[in-house]
Order: sequence, then structure tokens, then C-alpha cells
Amino acid sequence: MATITGVRVEDVRFPTSVTADGSDAMNKDADYSAAYVVLETDAPGPDGAPLGGYGLTFTIGRGNDIVAEAARQQAVTLVGRDVDELAADMGALYRDLTADSQLRWLGPEKGVVHLSLAAVLNAVWDLVARRAGKPLWRLLVDLTPEQLVDVADLRYLSDALTRDEALALLKAQEPGRQERLAHLERTGYPVYTTSAGWLGYSDDKLRRLCQEAVDAGYQHVKLKVGADLAEDVRRLTIAREVLGPDRNLMIDANQVWDVPQAIEWMRELARFDPLWIEEPTSPDDILGHAAVRRAVAPVGVATGEHCHNRVMFKQLFQAEAIDYCQLDTGRLASVNEIVAVLLLAAKFGVPVCPHAGGVGLCEMVQHVSVLDYVAIGGDLTGRVTEYVDHLHEHFTDPVTVADRGAGTAYVLPSLPGYSTQMYEESVERFRFPDGAYWVGDTSAPGTTVRDTAVRDTSQHVPH
Amino acid sequence: MATITGVRVEDVRFPTSVTADGSDAMNKDADYSAAYVVLETDAPGPDGAPLGGYGLTFTIGRGNDIVAEAARQQAVTLVGRDVDELAADMGALYRDLTADSQLRWLGPEKGVVHLSLAAVLNAVWDLVARRAGKPLWRLLVDLTPEQLVDVADLRYLSDALTRDEALALLKAQEPGRQERLAHLERTGYPVYTTSAGWLGYSDDKLRRLCQEAVDAGYQHVKLKVGADLAEDVRRLTIAREVLGPDRNLMIDANQVWDVPQAIEWMRELARFDPLWIEEPTSPDDILGHAAVRRAVAPVGVATGEHCHNRVMFKQLFQAEAIDYCQLDTGRLASVNEIVAVLLLAAKFGVPVCPHAGGVGLCEMVQHVSVLDYVAIGGDLTGRVTEYVDHLHEHFTDPVTVADRGAGTAYVLPSLPGYSTQMYEESVERFRFPDGAYWVGDTSAPGTTVRDTAVRDTSQHVPH
Repeated sequence: MATITGVRVEDVRFPTSVTADGSDAMNKDADYSAAYVVLETDAPGPDGAPLGGYGLTFTIGRGNDIVAEAARQQAVTLVGRDVDELAADMGALYRDLTADSQLRWLGPEKGVVHLSLAAVLNAVWDLVARRAGKPLWRLLVDLTPEQLVDVADLRYLSDALTRDEALALLKAQEPGRQERLAHLERTGYPVYTTSAGWLGYSDDKLRRLCQEAVDAGYQHVKLKVGADLAEDVRRLTIAREVLGPDRNLMIDANQVWDVPQAIEWMRELARFDPLWIEEPTSPDDILGHAAVRRAVAPVGVATGEHCHNRVMFKQLFQAEAIDYCQLDTGRLASVNEIVAVLLLAAKFGVPVCPHAGGVGLCEMVQHVSVLDYVAIGGDLTGRVTEYVDHLHEHFTDPVTVADRGAGTAYVLPSLPGYSTQMYEESVERFRFPDGAYWVGDTSAPGTTVRDTAVRDTSQHVPH
Repeated sequence: MATITGVRVEDVRFPTSVTADGSDAMNKDADYSAAYVVLETDAPGPDGAPLGGYGLTFTIGRGNDIVAEAARQQAVTLVGRDVDELAADMGALYRDLTADSQLRWLGPEKGVVHLSLAAVLNAVWDLVARRAGKPLWRLLVDLTPEQLVDVADLRYLSDALTRDEALALLKAQEPGRQERLAHLERTGYPVYTTSAGWLGYSDDKLRRLCQEAVDAGYQHVKLKVGADLAEDVRRLTIAREVLGPDRNLMIDANQVWDVPQAIEWMRELARFDPLWIEEPTSPDDILGHAAVRRAVAPVGVATGEHCHNRVMFKQLFQAEAIDYCQLDTGRLASVNEIVAVLLLAAKFGVPVCPHAGGVGLCEMVQHVSVLDYVAIGGDLTGRVTEYVDHLHEHFTDPVTVADRGAGTAYVLPSLPGYSTQMYEESVERFRFPDGAYWVGDTSAPGTTVRDTAVRDTSQHVPH
């Protein structure tokens, strides 16, 4: 027996706006934040401390408290539930949590109540994997095709993918699972980096970071664009110089353009041979993305970090609107909805290159990418998962990237869970608004935070 | 001078689940609620009391506190602003309020932060109309085409509608404005009723309410469907018997079907000759609605009450997915986004039949429908606006419907504002969780609430 005895939800905010980490054409002053859910149980964990589950969704500052409150209201319904019973039917738990029609009205399946649901379900999946003593990716690839399809939320998808089709697809990938897993255990899962390309960085910093990416073995580097065309040309010229003609350069407009403007702007940027243009327009504009894609080919179109649910992804695939599916582990409703999107992507033959960065997203996407390759998509062609090198120091099981001869890659995590537990010291220090950092004590003693994100806090006025 | 001096946001919930008002295949226990925003000023109103602005968005219970908190965070930024300056450039105010990229992340433009923005902007529009001493519809139809297009949020729409096209469309309607207005002042704006058709009602109650609708002069009646096919057939048989072959019968599935299921179910229900099937599937499924529409013609497809923004409506029009546009005044970001959708609908030739019911939605949609006919769409063909007869008793300027010879219709409101002010007694009594009703005092003295929605409160355990 292991019973969920309590729930704690924290509003944790890192002052990343100080260093312009995360700055792009739409988001100029992001304070990377997490609505962080802790599920407490009465069972002992492997280290003697009680077994817990830790999950989060990512936001960029104000409103993180609103998401946290929604998560609290959803999570309290779990108190008293037995962990092993939950683990035995995670599809049923998902349906329970999404069946509250009063909360559903506030979406449905989008915005705050869907972000908060992601945080809650991420915590449950973390708990279930910890209880099983496995990293989440291994728990998932150990499921049979029937178990995996039972986990997936296939509602509203049957015009594109029936349960039988999903099952057939999973069964077809079953024979190669062990071989593909062995490959990933040798090489890791390929990544690209966005650390170089934030808009707020100077040209010198951009050049230096591009060079560091090359030196570190990256074959893909992404830059933000869309604020000013002349500046984009200047920055892409620098990046191309450093990367050379053969490495992949991706660009990301973060939704700033209308459709005709995206097409026009890309006429000017196509000469830098980008692999993809990411978020060229409103994330809701399926038909707009399809129009942009037709106009800018052979440059690819990528989107997904703001794609709010599987019904939107279904249509992006049906409309042939995207070349790369960038699903987000904090925006989709955890593994249940992610498996559905991975199945759709596999059926439509669109590579999944998950969005990451933020807070804890890298920690989660590595599990998803392993699941995709081993059990669902079964292919690495055109796949590369985002990696951003910040804020990992706040996690107890941070991502590791290494180049083992096949390019820079996520090393498969080995500890039990979803890699989503934060150090209590980090939570305490950056809890908003009462953590030591936010009350103005920028040199609080007794923390173990190795704090790259707050290097310049001496100039920061908490807000 | 009139300065906004304070903001008050209330979580008001009416216990409608007691009587099954509002029950449908998706939403079985709705407690109709409002996140209610009050803007206080230092200027005198016409009655001597200080001038205020009153706005709301509608939810169905749990989570209304979350929307209220988001509205509070958005509304407090208005304190200190001058009302006349705001009124002079409502487009700029809209851009200010939507420019918070941190809150934008929680949507963007959808879910809780968009619902709350609607409530805040509805309050500002109410305030501006009160300050001008006009009902909102008159303030809007008195704007020039240039002023009206400056109010509209046209971002992300230029592939479907440019500013110049919007302006040309408004100018083309200018000569007929006075004539159309005079027509509405004589006849009112045509309505249909949903009061008869909630799923939770017995057959006898259904038959009685249909007969009452016929007796009251309604030419359109709407029923909920989708929970059980045999029951739908039985209920539609009753309704058709009472309505006869010539009156219009609409049906509403409230999103319960997958696309293939919607098509199959409608094969059985088509024989009742429904004018439209409403919300046959996920509100996000643009391509799914288009597929259903192709399959069920000549039955029309209607949707919109959960269509979360103008970008989604743009695509519903582009994909020829709907026959009726049911925009919602609590879900779109007030007049600014509504004008954009009315312009799109006019360009694509889709009749706008706004969603109403809930709390205060009828009060708002009458203003929108007048604006549409007089200044934008310019046509009544195929138009009929929803009307539900409950909860109006809580508003200081409730809707009036009457049959003046052209069918049952909203009588044009004449008091200044957006008709969105609630009685303070109602707010006090139904404020959650501390209002007299919710603390268990179901017979609180001293209220003036004429309370159709809480007839059966003696059996109700507050939750």
C-alpha cells in the first residue's frame, strides 16, 4: 500500500529576465517559472524518506500563481487514492481528472486548466515511475501495446486515428524495441541547442555562443528572429559564418507575424538556408501554418510549444501544415495526451522534435523522445530534441548531454521517475513572492543553488 | 475628468444545478456563475452615485475563483487611468492589456486569461458607454467606419481580411444604418429560446415548455441531444409534434461526439429536420466541423460558444466549416475581438447567431446583434440570437423580449452601458463561498432577488 496523503503546490519563479535568457520577439522579459506539484505518500522511498511524486508545468512569470491554484484544486482530489491502483489504470485517472465539466468550461482542454492538469499528471506519472523503481521512459517502453494505447487519450481523434490503427502501429514497432533501445543507450538521443540565440544577446555574445556550440559538437543551432528584419539578417550572417554551410540553423519567430508577413519575411531569410522556421504565426492558425509551409518550402515549418492539445495537432497533421512536431510536456496533459500525439505523428509521418528549455522541460522531453523512438515512431530521421543549458542546477536528476560519436545527445536518465524533482533549497529560495530571493535577500546563506540564471541579481529589483 | 479609482472582482455563483437548468450531454451539474468586475471612478453618475463600470464573464461553477483572480490581476492595471482617455482609443487599451507577454503565455488568447480579459474589457466598455450616456449598441453604431476598425483586433487576420477590406465593408454599410436601426427599433432583434430543451427535464416538462414557446410566438426552439440516441429520438418526436412542421427546431450536442460518431448520429436525427446541429464535436476541431458539415447537409452546422478567439473563427470561415457563427460575449475579448469576428463573418457571408443564456450573456448579445445588423453584417436573413429565460432578475437592466409582429425579439435596451450591472443584493447573496446562500442561509432576509433558479434550494447541499 502507498496512499497519497497530501498535496503541495508551489509558485516558483526564477528571475531570468535579468540576463535576457529567454528573450524573443514576443517575450521580452520572461521570468522562467514553474507551477510545481508535490504529491506526498505514506510509503517509504528508496532513500528512507517518504515516497513522493513531483511534477510541474512551465510559465514565464506573472500568472504562475493562477496556474498553481488551478493545479491545487485538481490535485487535492488525489488525496486518499492508492498509488498502485492509480498505476494500474492511468487512463482511468486521466478521464477522472478531465471529467470535471465545471473546470472543463474554462478551456476546454486549453489554457490555465490544461497547463495545471499537465503539472498534476506529470507528478502522478513521476510518482508511479518512482514507485516502480524505474525512470519513466523505461516504465513506458515496458508497457505492452495494449497498455500503452489504454493510457492514451484518443477522444476526438477517430477521424484520423482509430484505437485499432493505434494498436496496429504499436504492434508493428514491437519487434525492434530492444534494438532501438540498445542504440539509444549507446548514443543518447540527438539534441540541438537554443542557448546561443536569444534576441536580447549582443552580437559578440551571439558569436561566442555559436562558436561554443560548434566546439561542443552541436550539428543544430537555433536563433530567435522576427523583431527587426535588418537585425535578423545581421545575426543570421554571424551565425552562418560560425556554423559553416553544413551545420543546421533553425530560426524561431515566436508567433509575431501575420501569415502574409511571415511569407514575405521568410523570402529574405531563406538565403541563410534554415532547416525550419518555428512559430511563424499564431499557434492556433492551422490553415495559416499550412499556407506558410506551401510558400516557404523547402524551408520546413515547425510548431507545437503553444499547440494546446491533441485535437490541434491532429489538424496540423491533417492539413499538412508542419514538417516538425514540437510538442510540449508542460502544455499537453502529460503522458496520456503525449502518447496520443506521438501516435498521430507516427501515422502521418511527421518527425517529433519536442520543445524544451524553460524550467524542467529538458528533464521531461528526454523521456518522451526515448519512448517515441523505441515504441512509437521508431525512427531518428529528422529528429532532434531541444536542449537549453540553464536552470538544470535546480533539479535533483538534471539532464546530461554528451557527444558519444553521433553528435550531442541526451544521455538516458537512470534514476526512477520523470526527472522532475527540484531541490527543496531552490523551491524555498525562489518561491514567489516570499522566497529569500524575492524578498530581496540575494545572498541567502545555506542554499546549494549553483545559480547561472541569477548571475546579475545585484542589479535586479524584484517585481 | 473621471479617474478609475478602484477595482473589485467578485466570484458569484448561482446554484442552478439544483433544477437541472443548463444540463446537457457534456455539462450535467452546472452552477451558472460570473466572474464579475466592478470599476470604480471618482466621477458622479446620472443618479448621483459614483459612475462605475460593470463587466463579467460566464463560467459554470468550480474555477470561477481562478478566472476572478486572473481578472483582478488584469484589472488593477487600470487604476489611475482616465476614462475619457481610455474611451478615445479603446484599440490602444486592448493592445495594452494583451501585451503582457507573461500572462499571454498562459493562453495565448484562450482559456482562463482570455475569459478574464473579456470580463475586464466588458467592464471598461460598460463604463465608457455609461460615461457617454448611451447604451453600448448606440455608442458603437455612432462610431465612424474608421473608428470602428480602429477598435477591432485584426492581428493574425490579414490573410483573410485586411484593414482596407474591413474599412470598405463598413463604409458600404454606412448609407443604410439609419434605416436598419429604425427597423430594429420597431421590431426588436429576432431571438430563439433554449429554455425548453435541457437534457435533465422530464418529457412532460419538455412538452409543456415547447408548448409555452409556441404560445409565446417563438419560431425557433433548441433542444439538447447527444447523451442517448433513443432518448434523443423520443424527445425530438415530442418537440416536433408540438412545434409542427414549419417552426424551426435546432439541436445541440455540446461537443460529445467524435467526428464519425457525429455523422452517424445525425443520420438518425436528420428526419426531424433540424435547422442546425450545434457543437457536434470538439470546439477546436475546425477540419472536423467541416467534415461534419459536408456529411450532414442540408442540416446546418453551428458552433462558437467555445470558439476561443478570432483566429479560430477565421479558420472556421476559411474551411467553410459552419453555417452559423455563435460567438460568445464572455469568451471573446469583448467588443474589440467581437467586431473583428463580425467583420470576418460579413466578409465570408456567414450569419452571426450569438450564444447566450448563462449569466448576463443575453444582456450583452443584444448589443452585439444590433451592432452587427446596423453597421456590419447589414442583414437579418438567417439570423436569430439565443435567448434563455433565467437569471435576468439579478441584473439592473435585464433583457426584454416581445413579439411586435415579426416574431419574438429582444427589445433594444435604452439605459446607458452594456446592461451588465448586477444588483448588489444578488452579488452579496450568491458570492462564493461566503454569500448568504452558500453559507447555508437559504432564506436570508432583505434581498430583492426574485429567484427562479433556486426554487428547490431546500434540497440543496451547498458545495
